[in-house]
Amino acid sequence: VFESTHNNLIIGNGDDASAYLPGENLLQVVSTEILVENVNFDLMYTPLKHLGYKAVVAGISDIYAMNATPKFITIAIAASSKYTLEALEDLYSGIYQACKNYELNLIGGDTNTSPKGLTISVTAIGEVKSENIVSRKGCKPNDLLCVSGDLGGAFLGHKLLEREKRLYLENPEMQPDLEGFDYIVSRQLKPEARKDIIALLAELQIKPSAMIDLSDGLASDLKHLALQSGVGFHIYEEKLPIDPQSLEMASEFNLDATTCVLNGGEDFELLFTIPQSDFEKIKSSMDISIIGHATDQTGVCKLITPSGNQFDLTAQGWG
Amino acid sequence: VFESTHNNLIIGNGDDASAYLPGENLLQVVSTEILVENVNFDLMYTPLKHLGYKAVVAGISDIYAMNATPKFITIAIAASSKYTLEALEDLYSGIYQACKNYELNLIGGDTNTSPKGLTISVTAIGEVKSENIVSRKGCKPNDLLCVSGDLGGAFLGHKLLEREKRLYLENPEMQPDLEGFDYIVSRQLKPEARKDIIALLAELQIKPSAMIDLSDGLASDLKHLALQSGVGFHIYEEKLPIDPQSLEMASEFNLDATTCVLNGGEDFELLFTIPQSDFEKIKSSMDISIIGHATDQTGVCKLITPSGNQFDLTAQGWG
Repeated sequence: VFESTHNNLIIGNGDDASAYLPGENLLQVVSTEILVENVNFDLMYTPLKHLGYKAVVAGISDIYAMNATPKFITIAIAASSKYTLEALEDLYSGIYQACKNYELNLIGGDTNTSPKGLTISVTAIGEVKSENIVSRKGCKPNDLLCVSGDLGGAFLGHKLLEREKRLYLENPEMQPDLEGFDYIVSRQLKPEARKDIIALLAELQIKPSAMIDLSDGLASDLKHLALQSGVGFHIYEEKLPIDPQSLEMASEFNLDATTCVLNGGEDFELLFTIPQSDFEKIKSSMDISIIGHATDQTGVCKLITPSGNQFDLTAQGWG
Repeated sequence: VFESTHNNLIIGNGDDASAYLPGENLLQVVSTEILVENVNFDLMYTPLKHLGYKAVVAGISDIYAMNATPKFITIAIAASSKYTLEALEDLYSGIYQACKNYELNLIGGDTNTSPKGLTISVTAIGEVKSENIVSRKGCKPNDLLCVSGDLGGAFLGHKLLEREKRLYLENPEMQPDLEGFDYIVSRQLKPEARKDIIALLAELQIKPSAMIDLSDGLASDLKHLALQSGVGFHIYEEKLPIDPQSLEMASEFNLDATTCVLNGGEDFELLFTIPQSDFEKIKSSMDISIIGHATDQTGVCKLITPSGNQFDLTAQGWG
């Protein structure tokens, strides 16, 4: 199994457990998740290699959201007999690729049979200096709300893939038509974790007051920040970063693009808050948008439209 | 979710990730595994509370096998809609009970829906001084082979439970008859990890030269020790520790008790080797049996019968 020699790994895979020497005085940051076939992924349009890559990304995205650096992952897989050895090797090749790109050691694995389907559990472990850790708590009223990248793409890529799947099932002669939408398809099938944003914040000497990764959708994840920090938020509709492909696909589906941004998950972007005093440091960063600010109304999150109307956000939708 | 304040936990469950401060200069020891319904457990005779307890025990047993102390676990669960909230609470109550008994912090959890069945993944993290860690490598020829507790009980408890299940399915009026076999039933349904043996070895100032936990059966796990240490083993049939209930149940099933010991898994006992110079220290420990010794024939494991016959051990059986 893949192993590299960095990260102070003392005992790698193949024993009862692995062992590593943590960095001196560094907090160990741990997160776990489980992905289930036909709940979290559909293998009709998800190549197993991409699935392995995405599982790792989903795991380490939570580590970056603590402003920490992921170092190690463990992977547990339950797979039914329909998965051949070659299929599992494809899955692992994506896992190894992600380990390589993000400089991770795979330090534990368990593979088991399952009566049906494929289930993957990833535990990610990272490190951070205690003075640099960022949680969901800590945002203060008037802090600026920032988000990396663009939003809604993974959701709309998923809608497109589901549509093409349906068309294919109705008429197996059909070839899926994804042309012109490669970006949103890749947002769904091969997302990346925002390692670069954590590096950028360090370079700009910005420590967010609170941070979360966007896995469930902006409305839901913003609510977590609000409730755990004891603040509210105003976000401005015209500030929401949306890729042109997302806008076009939303329009094809007759969906409101803002709704897709608020409720679509799996973008794996970072949502964070900074004190206003850090505005000058961040204002020219192309890949970070300031989309609103914190208020003192705990748990109250409002969307402000360009015409000045206000809507309460709920995790289910807005209106 | 259960949390205690020991273990230097800085951020507990409920954020993107948890964070803890590792003990100074301590190696972090990590192991992961996945348990699948109708592959690893049968809920017809496994109470969910016991299943939760056993999942934790299976996870931390690997940490003890490194001579380390488990400190943290994460749990990921995928459960179909047939599992009610109450059922999941039963499962978690067993997890919490194990956390309490073994002084663990549950620092991460993810619960997801699943189209079918129940899957549980446990990642355990422990700590150990680097000079105290014990791997599967390190056994030398002539080292003594020791095992804790008794063997084969979990396997024979499983046989008994499967028999009573079959009888019940044939005739639902039947009550399961487990009388007189409470010990082997508990070995299957509510095993414990040998925390006490690790403490005893420390007290006796014995550091095993190699160690593994018995999850797959003596023959298979012994082979791992042999191959990874580059030694062989002779084990003596009359030295194998077998509980009277196991002997009686083997006899009821017309099974050879030694075969049950060699091939039956899930005893979660510790199999370890010590230099002969430690014999005096260990010889009067009631709960440790010396069952053989290492040889210089790499990978060759032999069972010696009371009459002096030798049989090659394989993971499948012997003969």
